[in-house]
Amino acid sequence: MIIIMQRGATEPQIEQLTQHLTSRGVRAERLTGKEQTVIGIVGGSGGYDITAMSAMPGVQEVVRVSSPYRLTSRAAHPEDTVITLPDGTRVGGDAPSIVIAGPCSVESEDQLRRTAETVRKAGVRFMRGGAFKPRTSPYSFQGLGFDGLELLKKVSREFDLFIVSEVMEPAHVPAIQEFTDIVQVGSRNMQNYPLLRQIGNIRKPVLLKRGAAATIEEWLMAAEYILAGGNDKVILCERGIRSFETTLRFTQDISAVPVIKKMSHLPILVDPSHATGRRDMVSSMARAAIAAGADGIMVEVHPDPDRALSDGAQSLTFELFEEMMGELVRVADAVNRPLLVDGYHYSPSGNRVPVAGLP
Amino acid sequence: MIIIMQRGATEPQIEQLTQHLTSRGVRAERLTGKEQTVIGIVGGSGGYDITAMSAMPGVQEVVRVSSPYRLTSRAAHPEDTVITLPDGTRVGGDAPSIVIAGPCSVESEDQLRRTAETVRKAGVRFMRGGAFKPRTSPYSFQGLGFDGLELLKKVSREFDLFIVSEVMEPAHVPAIQEFTDIVQVGSRNMQNYPLLRQIGNIRKPVLLKRGAAATIEEWLMAAEYILAGGNDKVILCERGIRSFETTLRFTQDISAVPVIKKMSHLPILVDPSHATGRRDMVSSMARAAIAAGADGIMVEVHPDPDRALSDGAQSLTFELFEEMMGELVRVADAVNRPLLVDGYHYSPSGNRVPVAGLP
Amino acid sequence: MIIIMQRGATEPQIEQLTQHLTSRGVRAERLTGKEQTVIGIVGGSGGYDITAMSAMPGVQEVVRVSSPYRLTSRAAHPEDTVITLPDGTRVGGDAPSIVIAGPCSVESEDQLRRTAETVRKAGVRFMRGGAFKPRTSPYSFQGLGFDGLELLKKVSREFDLFIVSEVMEPAHVPAIQEFTDIVQVGSRNMQNYPLLRQIGNIRKPVLLKRGAAATIEEWLMAAEYILAGGNDKVILCERGIRSFETTLRFTQDISAVPVIKKMSHLPILVDPSHATGRRDMVSSMARAAIAAGADGIMVEVHPDPDRALSDGAQSLTFELFEEMMGELVRVADAVNRPLLVDGYHYSPSGNRVPVAGLP
Amino acid sequence: MIIIMQRGATEPQIEQLTQHLTSRGVRAERLTGKEQTVIGIVGGSGGYDITAMSAMPGVQEVVRVSSPYRLTSRAAHPEDTVITLPDGTRVGGDAPSIVIAGPCSVESEDQLRRTAETVRKAGVRFMRGGAFKPRTSPYSFQGLGFDGLELLKKVSREFDLFIVSEVMEPAHVPAIQEFTDIVQVGSRNMQNYPLLRQIGNIRKPVLLKRGAAATIEEWLMAAEYILAGGNDKVILCERGIRSFETTLRFTQDISAVPVIKKMSHLPILVDPSHATGRRDMVSSMARAAIAAGADGIMVEVHPDPDRALSDGAQSLTFELFEEMMGELVRVADAVNRPLLVDGYHYSPSGNRVPVAGLP
Repeated sequence: MIIIMQRGATEPQIEQLTQHLTSRGVRAERLTGKEQTVIGIVGGSGGYDITAMSAMPGVQEVVRVSSPYRLTSRAAHPEDTVITLPDGTRVGGDAPSIVIAGPCSVESEDQLRRTAETVRKAGVRFMRGGAFKPRTSPYSFQGLGFDGLELLKKVSREFDLFIVSEVMEPAHVPAIQEFTDIVQVGSRNMQNYPLLRQIGNIRKPVLLKRGAAATIEEWLMAAEYILAGGNDKVILCERGIRSFETTLRFTQDISAVPVIKKMSHLPILVDPSHATGRRDMVSSMARAAIAAGADGIMVEVHPDPDRALSDGAQSLTFELFEEMMGELVRVADAVNRPLLVDGYHYSPSGNRVPVAGLP
Repeated sequence: MIIIMQRGATEPQIEQLTQHLTSRGVRAERLTGKEQTVIGIVGGSGGYDITAMSAMPGVQEVVRVSSPYRLTSRAAHPEDTVITLPDGTRVGGDAPSIVIAGPCSVESEDQLRRTAETVRKAGVRFMRGGAFKPRTSPYSFQGLGFDGLELLKKVSREFDLFIVSEVMEPAHVPAIQEFTDIVQVGSRNMQNYPLLRQIGNIRKPVLLKRGAAATIEEWLMAAEYILAGGNDKVILCERGIRSFETTLRFTQDISAVPVIKKMSHLPILVDPSHATGRRDMVSSMARAAIAAGADGIMVEVHPDPDRALSDGAQSLTFELFEEMMGELVRVADAVNRPLLVDGYHYSPSGNRVPVAGLP
Repeated sequence: MIIIMQRGATEPQIEQLTQHLTSRGVRAERLTGKEQTVIGIVGGSGGYDITAMSAMPGVQEVVRVSSPYRLTSRAAHPEDTVITLPDGTRVGGDAPSIVIAGPCSVESEDQLRRTAETVRKAGVRFMRGGAFKPRTSPYSFQGLGFDGLELLKKVSREFDLFIVSEVMEPAHVPAIQEFTDIVQVGSRNMQNYPLLRQIGNIRKPVLLKRGAAATIEEWLMAAEYILAGGNDKVILCERGIRSFETTLRFTQDISAVPVIKKMSHLPILVDPSHATGRRDMVSSMARAAIAAGADGIMVEVHPDPDRALSDGAQSLTFELFEEMMGELVRVADAVNRPLLVDGYHYSPSGNRVPVAGLP
Repeated sequence: MIIIMQRGATEPQIEQLTQHLTSRGVRAERLTGKEQTVIGIVGGSGGYDITAMSAMPGVQEVVRVSSPYRLTSRAAHPEDTVITLPDGTRVGGDAPSIVIAGPCSVESEDQLRRTAETVRKAGVRFMRGGAFKPRTSPYSFQGLGFDGLELLKKVSREFDLFIVSEVMEPAHVPAIQEFTDIVQVGSRNMQNYPLLRQIGNIRKPVLLKRGAAATIEEWLMAAEYILAGGNDKVILCERGIRSFETTLRFTQDISAVPVIKKMSHLPILVDPSHATGRRDMVSSMARAAIAAGADGIMVEVHPDPDRALSDGAQSLTFELFEEMMGELVRVADAVNRPLLVDGYHYSPSGNRVPVAGLP
């Protein structure tokens, strides 16, 4: 912490502040500039909230020096975190970049099976599908609940897919983790701390979506709750932030990818479906994400999007999905992060080539 | 719903869309303009998600005509909702405007009692105090939990104060409502739907804070969850939104007050402490809120803010709090919404005058 | 300036940085904390751009200590700036709060005369009217230009009104200042530096509107251009900022009022017409502005808003304008900044009382 | 235009509105829904501002059907605009994607020549360099002015480079276009309409940067000013928008690329230097831009960024620039928009291959 005094702060004000610190056992050092004085806390704040002092007389600003996230920071853990699934498939670090695809909501067995088949045929190993749906309106379809999870489990076994599905309340965590391979915390729950604490208690990988108004720092602090709880298998997912621009649903913050890579060791995915809200924008943003260095993407696919019960406008048709996959393979190769397509990837010339380093 | 076709949409595209609607029992009417065609859904969409069609060929945009919130809308309920507390104190409508004051977190019995005394002496009837605290960092003080609620109950009885305190998870709702007169849903939980549904099941008044990135519409939709559950005692609370301006913690959206008054019948309060994050800004914004027509304000007060365990920088000292109360009384009178100060209000000349219409 | 080194920055990196500074004659002092090192620039940066060093190896962040605006800062000029017009009318400081009212665009002599008469009858001394109009679309009405200014001059003499009108390009400044009492720099031109420099050369008061995406600091820096040019008669005007909330046109940042009062000595007005874009929201926000401590407000009034050539939806009818004036008088009294209404102000009981200290 | 009446709008209100329209010669058609009435303007609004009616009694909202930009819209001009420079080099459409590189400001002949040499050696044909600089602070380096332009001209001839430089005021347009191949309108001047009109009068290509708070629509409307003036050689450039996220300087809106491609026929570039403000983020975002389908990128390069007079932190070193070029070549190939590198492009295996279709 550094406390910057106002221009014109008086000597008694500086004195009062220093005593306030000393009285609580905080060691401070003074730096006298030409116009302003700066006080540095050199030995830690002893758990004391220094920012509370930002309103004291003569204080201009309290500047935090060290990042408030510890376990999630790159400084604490210089190597990339790589998350390994039961069969050895890896996410993050130099592992192949992944695709998670599937419907917004599980609607029926037929819908799910048709999607699973298409997704699997394209070489994808991860399927998403919502059973518990956070919906803005209480009158919208709220998901099939545990029936939806049963369907996901059944179909995933059939097609050998890893399942990603969302949990919305702390009490559901133990049950839902049984049905999923990666437990998702949705955007609206990024700062649902009782939920994050429960998630910290399990050992399944977690996909932590960014809140629509969450800063990078708040997002990493949310991850910190999970890591501090003992679960270090966190995958971050950028899904668009709120800005003044409303042509699309949200503004996809692609720069979050290199920023997270710099500040943290956790893997980061990008979800262009929720960010754009329009299927004709999804491929471009998926390519951009991979080109920027994301560890993968997550997209929505539906056999008949115009009739989907939720998020139809942003769901890819099977045709668009396959087209996107072909493009992604090429971009992923160009940035030396070949796409994980069932142990293979497509070469630019269209040949399937085994991915080095995969089991 | 209205579907606007693109300039240059072909007749077959329009035909396909109309058939798509008709096949699902939706009655559509066509309006042929000079350059573009518009299709109006005239008899309701039959529960069908028309927005999913916004990505169909030839469609430019799907425009919603009617607001998605029903129970919370002014159209559905033209008179102001007035919430009555057990002793007859009223909030909303033409009732006197209220002040809720108290510490961010309950820290100790001494801290709470000193605050309660000051708050009560100023004539205020509502005290806030956090027992379960949503904190950005897992390493920050997380509140005293049920011990804090016990303290609130004890002190509130002593000083005859109504208690406002936050609930963070669905499972806590039944217990926490026993300790509070108004149950608060915090900003980070505005779209925590399992929590909103639980809150819909109780009959205590609810203070629903606006999410930092929530549009007015999303906020009213969150309230709709509670009303749809059967609890119509919802008080909205503006607490600052996220914008690019970072001099203060958030940007207080004062215009939400007249907007909500237009669109909804629910009472609306303003919380300038969280919005500004700085105690020297609180009074100005509290005055602005009352002048704009808010039904009241909520502020943080602490006996020794520089040593507070949370949000010290934004907590008013007792002295600043009393100064603010004097100012608010005058502004409230000027807009004909006299402040509720224990059954009295201060006249501009400083005399205490009984508030008409109070029990 | 303070340079915060990363956790784990090496001694050679710190050394390299210090040498880089020393080699350019900048004196630096080192503060060694428990985990991180901080380097303070103690004697000024000698015109050298220290922020360029924020990308040097080992550097975490460069933090500016002193505000970049000098002449506009409260520190440099502790007393409020009060701007005096030729007849002794004052703006800012403890002078009565003012109202500027008039049409968005000058459309015709009849429109202008009818508006002037209404405005004047309400006791208002300042009339706005656009002759050169910045319009988002090249196909919208662009203003009457110098013909409009001639009309403004003529009508203003007739009704003894001060004229506020916008200038859009540097070359027009000398001519336009002849027609106006206060020269307006519009929101879109807040960072039009050649224009600001020209404005710095004149001696007329300037109304500097805030850019829709301008931070408080950028706004004060724009004012700094004018003051640095030699014109210290700058009045700031908040007119709404861009946020994600789109129910209204912009988000009125009322908190800019107390923030500016803290950081600067310049007067600040609020324009609720452009901020809200809707006439039914204008009065609430005007009252909030005055209650928060603004030195006045600026609103749009039109004899027949539904037929206005620009901004009709946000223009007050004469009836709404008069209603607002009555309310403002009361709020202004409540905060001890009585409204300037032609040398008088209305007491809460409705009596006209002379304003103390006016000529 | 479509006028949506409120739920509960009365028959007389609908009647009044229809008469208001008819009296001005606007033909309206009525669509009566289950709960609300919609009025469609079927024959054009006759230059009349229908939005002014949005505040009339009973009106809920006025919805624009057709886009306000005409010349810049894809509907008006289905083929991509391709801009051809004197030697036949093309920008936009299916032409190779381009790189514009150079210093933020022209500082000296030595700085410029060293940069030009590096840029040229990498095969780049376009050099940027600011001579007139819009700076937030009046105390910052403001550029060398016409001396800077002379240097640009001299060096560009020597290295056969096209020059991109900014013009800040209308009066400078004729002179500056003589020194440049592409005239740049900066972000802060995107809505400087007198400047846009002057630019509309020349025949040089224009690089129109997006304002930091400009919506896509406002940006296209700014381009519309230039096209309406007769200059159809407009290249758009995304350079970051203002959002709440402040880890980087701005938020790069990569989705603007596919959105612009859908809505307009104009070429679009991306400037990751200004968007991120940090050189270690530039390459990732440049790759993302090309992957998303941009027609090129613009970056800042400096021989000694830590000593740059402006924007040093975001300027690439020569080494980082060359590294980025190698990466871009591969990504551009992967999306079938090979990079224009002096008539050649690098194959993924590192071989220079002539670009098909280049002169």
